[in-house]
Amino acid sequence: VEYIDPGSKTVGGKTAEGGAFQISYDRLLIATGATPIIPDLPGFDLPGVMGLKSLEDGRRIKQFIEEKNVKRIVIIGMGYIALEMCEALRGRGIKVDMVKPRRAFLPWLQEDLGHMVRDEVEARGVGVNSGHGIKEIREGEGGLKVVCEDLTLDCEMVLSAAGIKPVSDIAEEAGLQLGPDRAIAVDRTLRTSEENIYAAGDCADAFHIVTGERVWIPLALRANRAGWAVADNITGKHVELDGVAGTAVFKVFDLQVAATGLNIHQAEEAGFDPVAAMIKSRTRAHAHPGSTKIGVSMVGDKKTERLLGVQMVGGEGAAHRVNAPAVALQARMTVGAFAESDMAYAPPFGPVWDPMLTAANQLLKKMR
Amino acid sequence: VEYIDPGSKTVGGKTAEGGAFQISYDRLLIATGATPIIPDLPGFDLPGVMGLKSLEDGRRIKQFIEEKNVKRIVIIGMGYIALEMCEALRGRGIKVDMVKPRRAFLPWLQEDLGHMVRDEVEARGVGVNSGHGIKEIREGEGGLKVVCEDLTLDCEMVLSAAGIKPVSDIAEEAGLQLGPDRAIAVDRTLRTSEENIYAAGDCADAFHIVTGERVWIPLALRANRAGWAVADNITGKHVELDGVAGTAVFKVFDLQVAATGLNIHQAEEAGFDPVAAMIKSRTRAHAHPGSTKIGVSMVGDKKTERLLGVQMVGGEGAAHRVNAPAVALQARMTVGAFAESDMAYAPPFGPVWDPMLTAANQLLKKMR
Repeated sequence: VEYIDPGSKTVGGKTAEGGAFQISYDRLLIATGATPIIPDLPGFDLPGVMGLKSLEDGRRIKQFIEEKNVKRIVIIGMGYIALEMCEALRGRGIKVDMVKPRRAFLPWLQEDLGHMVRDEVEARGVGVNSGHGIKEIREGEGGLKVVCEDLTLDCEMVLSAAGIKPVSDIAEEAGLQLGPDRAIAVDRTLRTSEENIYAAGDCADAFHIVTGERVWIPLALRANRAGWAVADNITGKHVELDGVAGTAVFKVFDLQVAATGLNIHQAEEAGFDPVAAMIKSRTRAHAHPGSTKIGVSMVGDKKTERLLGVQMVGGEGAAHRVNAPAVALQARMTVGAFAESDMAYAPPFGPVWDPMLTAANQLLKKMR
Repeated sequence: VEYIDPGSKTVGGKTAEGGAFQISYDRLLIATGATPIIPDLPGFDLPGVMGLKSLEDGRRIKQFIEEKNVKRIVIIGMGYIALEMCEALRGRGIKVDMVKPRRAFLPWLQEDLGHMVRDEVEARGVGVNSGHGIKEIREGEGGLKVVCEDLTLDCEMVLSAAGIKPVSDIAEEAGLQLGPDRAIAVDRTLRTSEENIYAAGDCADAFHIVTGERVWIPLALRANRAGWAVADNITGKHVELDGVAGTAVFKVFDLQVAATGLNIHQAEEAGFDPVAAMIKSRTRAHAHPGSTKIGVSMVGDKKTERLLGVQMVGGEGAAHRVNAPAVALQARMTVGAFAESDMAYAPPFGPVWDPMLTAANQLLKKMR
């Protein structure tokens, strides 16, 4: 499909044999997804420079590593795909260097929590080179060279994990309204600016349940949920999706990193009067064997005392714990109400006061 | 302390030397806790019949096992203390038989979830003898005999874990109002029926946040929280506690068992029009190694669509997941609102639709 014509309610393009085709529709769903951002710099088209989006990409990467007996990989980017790959590659005994232009390691994460993750990654022998603008990739003796402003990294393979962008060109050319990051703008029923055209998945935007504003946070649950909702709406039911909290989680080596809602910078930008509290606690009761560190950062609005967001990093339990504040955001709860929740306690799973309650209690002290 | 006299605002009793003492108070806090229920049957006073409440009890049990080289233990009761002890004792290679009068293994748990736990316990070689009324404990050759109506169990030690009761005699004798299970009745400020007397901890009752009714659910977080609240209220602040959801969790061998709010029977008794949905899912994404089973049972009110309770049993993630519905109960959410929550997804931690969302979606279908 090469074009959408909302006026005549048709889509068209060329067949594999080169002939033109046209199909008419009553309702159209755009589910074009997202695609990796490949930096527009010299050398990113060299063999051995890989992106990772599809299962096929994964297979190609694995095959290349095995065939070329790859010992050193440079990862461009430090997002969760980069970090997950980092763990997988270290598991194969490959030397890994990460590099990116921005200074902050995980800029969306509270600083102390970011340090916890960086320490873990570095302790596993990964080179974290943040603050280095990439100039080009060059072929060198027996491999590739990633050339930065004041650093050159040698390797046999480069993994480009510099983020993704929505596939929305076809929608834009058809005159559909775009939202943040050029994602296709949809309403709560997943309808685009054209009455009979819907969009769902990583190509479409959503409303943020904390700010009410349009955001582009391409994650699996929302994509899946939107697919179901479109199916309902196209077949005559009426389903509205409330929105997203941006709840995200990933594992990197022995740490779980989880976040939901806004961090303090996003909260400021959204016009709140935010306050944050950061606490460190343990993942099991005092003296219970196998306990690890867990850090919780919680953000609330001073004016309304509304809970705005939570971030957590810990050796265990962070990934599932984050669903509790995600539900609280869905319910538009205050920090005070969240702090009164009757959370679970047993020695293998946490202290008597769950770290989330400790964070909420500290935040209340700072807000009042 | 042997008595409380609210009229003269004094407490009194006998000193260690046998003399009488009297102390006057402005505000009094009763924090007498709870005590194990020891069945009033022959033989429960024999050496080798143990209760478990304090750290000292734990030490005595351990010493007895080591000194007498105990190989077989019978546990009376099948609550979470009994089950936790079961795991600890099996870890020492001791043969364990559990016995209790009621048929249902864990009567408060949804049936399929109860089976999951029972299967796990039996797979670890524990004898589960439910439905056997205990008649007496007798001394036999080289040990003890637990004699039931149609069963006799031989062992060297008996652990009595038949539940606990609040220590409230002194409060009752002072004329204070008692609540359910003879716990000391307190209002939201932890004040008893006497203006200057407070009660906190396992001796006191609480309001249930789902039913609004008084309940006695003696758990650590509420006890701790009540202590802080009393301190505030006695020193001139005004703190009210909303109540409890009865959120509880325990580990037994490789399973986590978690519950919050009401089960379907409790919901019926409380006057709701309850519907339940039970789903089975996996604790990690399809094809992710190390995945285990997880079952979720969710109860909602057909009339108002309010979420009433959730129970979960799984190989991982149940203990921390249960905080999400606990927060939803605190917020008095509907099942529909809970089902819209933006929960976390990453392959090591669950399927795209968290099992709690799958349960909520199934429950909505049954409610509408």
